[in-house]
Amino acid sequence: MRARVTVTLKSGVLDPQGKAIEGALRSLGVEGVASVRQGKVFDVELDTGDQARAEAALKAACERLLANTVIENYRVEIAS
Amino acid sequence: MRARVTVTLKSGVLDPQGKAIEGALRSLGVEGVASVRQGKVFDVELDTGDQARAEAALKAACERLLANTVIENYRVEIAS
Repeated sequence: MRARVTVTLKSGVLDPQGKAIEGALRSLGVEGVASVRQGKVFDVELDTGDQARAEAALKAACERLLANTVIENYRVEIAS
Repeated sequence: MRARVTVTLKSGVLDPQGKAIEGALRSLGVEGVASVRQGKVFDVELDTGDQARAEAALKAACERLLANTVIENYRVEIAS
């Protein structure tokens, strides 16, 4: 069973990395980009076929390690 | 116009960060995770309403800055 976890900054939280990317794109002459915010993605392979167990494991992983829930949101998508 | 760019390592490319996360999850007692690979996600706000222009800008951004196409794949999803 495979899953994708996407971790993004909550709105309102400053994103200096995103700002740096905006500046770099402008310097490189890429037009039309108004703003960029960077996040993380985790492609997780689970060794269980049970949907409920997979969801529980992924939630635990996000809450304990993958996301800082004070400033970040996470989203879990389980694929088959 | 908003878009999401997802950059992931090509298969076969070593991912020490993913391996470290696997180890950390095991140490934290999160069961059922077989493997983890980490990637990046960029939420981009574009100041054009034109789909073709947006696609061109995002492709340029990926090729020139956001992805290292030797070792990474990128995927662009445009949302409305």
